Amino acid sequence: MGSIESERTTIGWAARDPSGILSPFPFNLRNTGPEDLYVKVLCCGICHSDLHQIKNDLGQSNYPMVPGHEVVGEVLEVGSDVTEFRAGDVVGVGLLVQCCRNCHPCKSDMEQYCNKKIWNYNDVYTDGKPTQGGFAGEVVVDKKFVVKIPEGMDAEQAAPLLCAGVTIYSPLNHFGLKNSGLRGGILGLGGVGHMGVKIAKAMGHHVTVISSSNKKREEALEHLGADGYLMSSDEEQMKAAADSLDYIIDTVPVFHPLEPYLSLLKLDGKLILLGVINTPLQFVSPMVMLGRKVITGSFIGSMKETKEMLDFCKEKGLTSQIEVIKMDYINTAFERLAKNDVRYRFVVDVAGSKLD
Amino acid sequence: MGSIESERTTIGWAARDPSGILSPFPFNLRNTGPEDLYVKVLCCGICHSDLHQIKNDLGQSNYPMVPGHEVVGEVLEVGSDVTEFRAGDVVGVGLLVQCCRNCHPCKSDMEQYCNKKIWNYNDVYTDGKPTQGGFAGEVVVDKKFVVKIPEGMDAEQAAPLLCAGVTIYSPLNHFGLKNSGLRGGILGLGGVGHMGVKIAKAMGHHVTVISSSNKKREEALEHLGADGYLMSSDEEQMKAAADSLDYIIDTVPVFHPLEPYLSLLKLDGKLILLGVINTPLQFVSPMVMLGRKVITGSFIGSMKETKEMLDFCKEKGLTSQIEVIKMDYINTAFERLAKNDVRYRFVVDVAGSKLD
Repeated sequence: MGSIESERTTIGWAARDPSGILSPFPFNLRNTGPEDLYVKVLCCGICHSDLHQIKNDLGQSNYPMVPGHEVVGEVLEVGSDVTEFRAGDVVGVGLLVQCCRNCHPCKSDMEQYCNKKIWNYNDVYTDGKPTQGGFAGEVVVDKKFVVKIPEGMDAEQAAPLLCAGVTIYSPLNHFGLKNSGLRGGILGLGGVGHMGVKIAKAMGHHVTVISSSNKKREEALEHLGADGYLMSSDEEQMKAAADSLDYIIDTVPVFHPLEPYLSLLKLDGKLILLGVINTPLQFVSPMVMLGRKVITGSFIGSMKETKEMLDFCKEKGLTSQIEVIKMDYINTAFERLAKNDVRYRFVVDVAGSKLD
Repeated sequence: MGSIESERTTIGWAARDPSGILSPFPFNLRNTGPEDLYVKVLCCGICHSDLHQIKNDLGQSNYPMVPGHEVVGEVLEVGSDVTEFRAGDVVGVGLLVQCCRNCHPCKSDMEQYCNKKIWNYNDVYTDGKPTQGGFAGEVVVDKKFVVKIPEGMDAEQAAPLLCAGVTIYSPLNHFGLKNSGLRGGILGLGGVGHMGVKIAKAMGHHVTVISSSNKKREEALEHLGADGYLMSSDEEQMKAAADSLDYIIDTVPVFHPLEPYLSLLKLDGKLILLGVINTPLQFVSPMVMLGRKVITGSFIGSMKETKEMLDFCKEKGLTSQIEVIKMDYINTAFERLAKNDVRYRFVVDVAGSKLD
């Protein structure tokens, strides 16, 4: 235990330009401060937002960029003021690595909404240096943004929970939608959507997967255990399902009409948007007024919710469906992710990969 | 007390076609059933939605149509099963006059969201006959949809509360926005908006009126007692007010952008739409996701909320700002309302008017 004397070097896989192609990139990690943990990365999930970041789809990317924000690792050393963790602990790190600690969200365990939050990569840390993500040998992280992985949970299984899992859990928790017996809809069956089916099922909900075609019917009902499947292009089916759902989690990251889905909601039903869509979405006001329906959205979750969610998944024996790869496959994995060709999350076995 | 033997005739003022011009119209009232009240109309407010109805703006108007749904009257006679009211009581009737009583909303005191609700005019009652509104000598109404006007409250003052008042009160009540100290915004300063300022102030909120120009600044701050005034066309003012409001009540009944107002909301802030707008409204998903903001709407309020609201207004000594007119002025009043030329609600002194 104790602070580290000099900067250490690690090797990450970084994108160098908007081609988004990752290659080995040695860089310095900051000194392990009194509240920091120095962590050896075991594995790291690939999230759809990593794809947007490496390709500069949002126009805010800085290179070289080491992506990765579903990080599971083993603690190598802790700072002098860290008593909550010790060397050997298996821990997780998600999308955020710092916040202001003084604002209303920070003081209310909702630090993900802090206006001064710092992202774990493609951002600038308090020391003025770029942050780098989890596709690297080691990371240094403030203890506030580290969570213990429950004993007995596989590292690869835990990785997707740190972003996709808490992204689903947080709105269900915040909007009072954890009770057994609710009827939920999941729109979009990617990394976040598949976790939505699993978490909502584990909460005891009746879960309907909603999709534009019948392509995903079998996997939704038979592999993921959804209770229902609704093809949104079938007007009869949609009409029969009107006013039937307490909530819809909408993970679709591109423009789509909202009204067909609003009509599926019961009185006081909630449409929860999780996809970043910069094309304006539309609705007419009577669609919300006449059933007091709610259109809202949510952004990952707090560290408190991350802990709760991991405990919940452990208790329920919930597993994510993943494809484990080595680092030298990551560029192919991003290509496949762009085509939605993964069931449902790639996880990179970082510790088992050759990084240099 | 007892049911009435034969149908009675009354005289209302009805629109005959989409010109919307009202003129005397004798019609039969249904027999007073065991659960009904036979009520002499004292006064009735003019709501903006009456204007849409008489002119067939929504394409669903049937003529002859006697409008009026902010009805205050004196009970003349009650049905055999009515014990809650007696002759001489001053009572109010709002927008609805019947519901199914068996659905989830009906069983949960949210009958305004019943799919089989019956509107007090331009609808068909359970007996198959057209419903007619409050610009008439008398009305017959089921006791469930009648509320006592608190003693000491003027009939003319009470009228606008029965629609405009409860339309404001209900969402503040439902969405947990009654606590003192909240910061609210009111968008649109018509009949409903002015009531919004008054009711929110009476709840102890800090109330900001938001308007596109400075025209209403003086009346908002000096006459209505708002705490702040924000001109939405002034980017500097809007920027300075970002993240400052717990809710905005949006009464604007025509298309308008939502994003400038979403940006005024704090984390978990609510934009509550009360205007029926059939042109699609727009927003981009990060505007709601990154502050977990809520876009929702609300439709009048329940009878339970109507009672609560009347008691609240009585207790707080809240008065509405009205212009009392006689029935022979009603067509001029509708013309002025169409030009927004009223501060803030016309109330027709029906009992003091010559109807035939």
